[in-house]
Amino acid sequence: MNFGIVRYILGWVLEFEAVFLLLPVLVGILYGENDAAATFLAVAALCLLTGFAMKKKAPEQRDIYTREGFATVALSWIVMGVFGAIPFVLTGEIPSFVDALFETISGFTTTGASILTDVEALSHASLFWRSFTHWIGGMGVFVFIMAILPLMGGGTVMNLMRAESPGPSVGKLVPRVKDTAKILYELYLGITFIGTVALIATGLNLFEALTTIFGTVGTGGFGIYSDSVVSFSPLTQNVITLFMILSGINYTAYFCLLRRQFKEAFSIEEVRWYLLIILGSAAVIAWNIRKMYPTAGESIRHAFFQVGSIITTTGFSSADFDAWPQLSKTILVLLMFVGACAGSTGGGIKVSRILILFKAIRKELAMMIHPRMVKKIKVDGHTLSHEVLRSTNVFITVYFAIFFLSLLAVSIDNFGFTTNFTAVAATLNNIGPGLDMVGPTRNFALFSPISKCVLIFDMLAGRLELFPMLILLMPSCWKKY
Amino acid sequence: MNFGIVRYILGWVLEFEAVFLLLPVLVGILYGENDAAATFLAVAALCLLTGFAMKKKAPEQRDIYTREGFATVALSWIVMGVFGAIPFVLTGEIPSFVDALFETISGFTTTGASILTDVEALSHASLFWRSFTHWIGGMGVFVFIMAILPLMGGGTVMNLMRAESPGPSVGKLVPRVKDTAKILYELYLGITFIGTVALIATGLNLFEALTTIFGTVGTGGFGIYSDSVVSFSPLTQNVITLFMILSGINYTAYFCLLRRQFKEAFSIEEVRWYLLIILGSAAVIAWNIRKMYPTAGESIRHAFFQVGSIITTTGFSSADFDAWPQLSKTILVLLMFVGACAGSTGGGIKVSRILILFKAIRKELAMMIHPRMVKKIKVDGHTLSHEVLRSTNVFITVYFAIFFLSLLAVSIDNFGFTTNFTAVAATLNNIGPGLDMVGPTRNFALFSPISKCVLIFDMLAGRLELFPMLILLMPSCWKKY
Repeated sequence: MNFGIVRYILGWVLEFEAVFLLLPVLVGILYGENDAAATFLAVAALCLLTGFAMKKKAPEQRDIYTREGFATVALSWIVMGVFGAIPFVLTGEIPSFVDALFETISGFTTTGASILTDVEALSHASLFWRSFTHWIGGMGVFVFIMAILPLMGGGTVMNLMRAESPGPSVGKLVPRVKDTAKILYELYLGITFIGTVALIATGLNLFEALTTIFGTVGTGGFGIYSDSVVSFSPLTQNVITLFMILSGINYTAYFCLLRRQFKEAFSIEEVRWYLLIILGSAAVIAWNIRKMYPTAGESIRHAFFQVGSIITTTGFSSADFDAWPQLSKTILVLLMFVGACAGSTGGGIKVSRILILFKAIRKELAMMIHPRMVKKIKVDGHTLSHEVLRSTNVFITVYFAIFFLSLLAVSIDNFGFTTNFTAVAATLNNIGPGLDMVGPTRNFALFSPISKCVLIFDMLAGRLELFPMLILLMPSCWKKY
Repeated sequence: MNFGIVRYILGWVLEFEAVFLLLPVLVGILYGENDAAATFLAVAALCLLTGFAMKKKAPEQRDIYTREGFATVALSWIVMGVFGAIPFVLTGEIPSFVDALFETISGFTTTGASILTDVEALSHASLFWRSFTHWIGGMGVFVFIMAILPLMGGGTVMNLMRAESPGPSVGKLVPRVKDTAKILYELYLGITFIGTVALIATGLNLFEALTTIFGTVGTGGFGIYSDSVVSFSPLTQNVITLFMILSGINYTAYFCLLRRQFKEAFSIEEVRWYLLIILGSAAVIAWNIRKMYPTAGESIRHAFFQVGSIITTTGFSSADFDAWPQLSKTILVLLMFVGACAGSTGGGIKVSRILILFKAIRKELAMMIHPRMVKKIKVDGHTLSHEVLRSTNVFITVYFAIFFLSLLAVSIDNFGFTTNFTAVAATLNNIGPGLDMVGPTRNFALFSPISKCVLIFDMLAGRLELFPMLILLMPSCWKKY
């Protein structure tokens, strides 16, 4: 591995984190939380200095191959998590470093799984930072860096973005990567702004609206109240539902809309299936839970909220879905695996991958019945390349391998099967809450530090689409050359 | 589809079932159970006559393509199950037909999942039939038919055997299929005979020994006592452990041994990994349950028994493993998915498929680190063909699709997640018992008839390696041509 360039890029990432950390400083000052503001400022300074030291010596060799790209992205997210966790430890709000790291990585990866029992006890500065990590992690820190910094050549940049972008294939919206990154962030900022205004219109104050929209458009799920969004008004909940579902859509659709390519926008197969799955699941759940709520409207609201929250891998809860009938719970567990669209801020396996796999099965069965038929798998009218199908298959295999090995590792803590299974599903898919002892009214504090580390790995693996984290485990990745 | 040939072969299958049904008639007579004997005789006559009627008109077209091969095998197993269930209903021992069908399909597919609360209440004739279905289903009824009947040409036969044989690729031991089938049944008979003698030597009577060895070498798991094999002596249990593990080994190994090709026999990668997984899992479990049993020897015995029983997908239990710590239970759940070797009588995903998938992952990661490296996946020293890797990937996709859809379907009954998850895992992998409400001391009676039908489908899909059952669901399969 080319260690020079990795060090250099990590330095840049830390400098960016220093800038991000100034926002909670501002919030702390506004709310008169001087200690918290000072802590965040000190950590920002630490990031700046460390970053500066790492960047001082420019690397001789500036080439980045897949290996460096993947390793750099994985290491960047780990480093951001480690430095981002320090404020929680220093303020004493989360004294254990492993817990603070769990919370911060859960934030950056837009998981939203928490170890906190009493969220309200946090300072405004910390609550803001916690939610803001969702916003940074949602679109990705490298997409951000690409958008504003002429860091390196096109191939290099592509290798970094490929490692961070969700989905089976990286679509460039426009020929230049830098422009693509810019457009993505403009769209992201636009949706965030509209969402904030909408939430304020439903009665939230600016702080509530901002933190909530960070968790929504980043598909994160950290709330600023212990009951998540249960105490918000039905109208607010419905607005959140809408923005969660919008955030799970492939951003290519928004790009097409902006360019007035309406036909293209509405013909994306993945988006259609995504919306169909949401409609179907919510309908079945609304019917399944109809006796638990006084009106049909309330059942429908909770059904859509929870389906939107889980399939987009956000993880907010408007009700204790762990108390719902098993059919509804099983649908939610399956939606955890399905996940959102590729090219969105959501996690999971992704609708497009599921779509590709089902088309592959259909093709296989058709070929058994008509052996001489020549049939190609098509998505959005284009023939699917062999390479995409192969990488989808490899993804699924690696996905389940990590899933089952994690399940084995956390089972050492001796909690029940449902708890362990949904804890791994909720972290690997970047959801947040699971069922049983990690259900929406509980949290992840119960796990041992070792299990927490396994789940931290799963959150990172899920957000970075597995391979960047796996490559760090290969001894040959660390050989100097 | 060529319906003529399908009807014709189904007729042959029913005639064979008539012959199989004579064995419980004999047992009934020996034990003075005249009513039971008469019932089995009547059903045998029914099979014979129905079979005769179906076979009467020879088909004009004798070609069998993949489609007919798969559909015929799937339909044969369903027909065998339907007719094989009739005696249980007529004797009044299992009054509900769905329950009787569940029990019979569970037998033929060597699952061993039962809906019976009181096994001892059955007549000897029924107990024998129940266990004997394991023996028939273990090696497969078509392998049996091939071995003794010059039914059709080589290609035809291959299409039938391919649908029934477990594993990613069908290995012919010798050039002629008929000879391969013969050798397989000779080996099967040999192991059954040695096992019976061994069990008698440990103190079982002939009836106990025969029924137990049917469930062991067929990797079935039906016992003749409600407590499975808990009340058998430690020595008997150890002999069962040995024969379960031997029955999960690829029969190619025994064939090599017979031919004195010792080097080939011991160098089969799949078999080595299979034994390694058993050793590793049993060691961890023995340590994990050490405080639950008075001596280390007892922990080791139960650990090896349970690991052998689950990985070979037999499903006998020497202890209530649902009461074991979560780590042990999770290992057992994962072993349910791993399954036995290809080319054995066991079910599950199969060690060879897991091996292929892990090698594919390793290759993928190596290629990310060294993009220019040319690396091929090798198994047993031979380069793995693209076709086998592709079919393994398709298998895994279909497997998880069936798994998750079944999980959704049975969740309508509103039992817990652990119960539903392990019930589907235990049937799709042909194990038998799961955890929680389908744990080793419980049974499957609690499920609704609809869920039982879903689980029946899963048992058949698991035994026939998915595609023969799936093809029946395709409307285009039923078109006449």
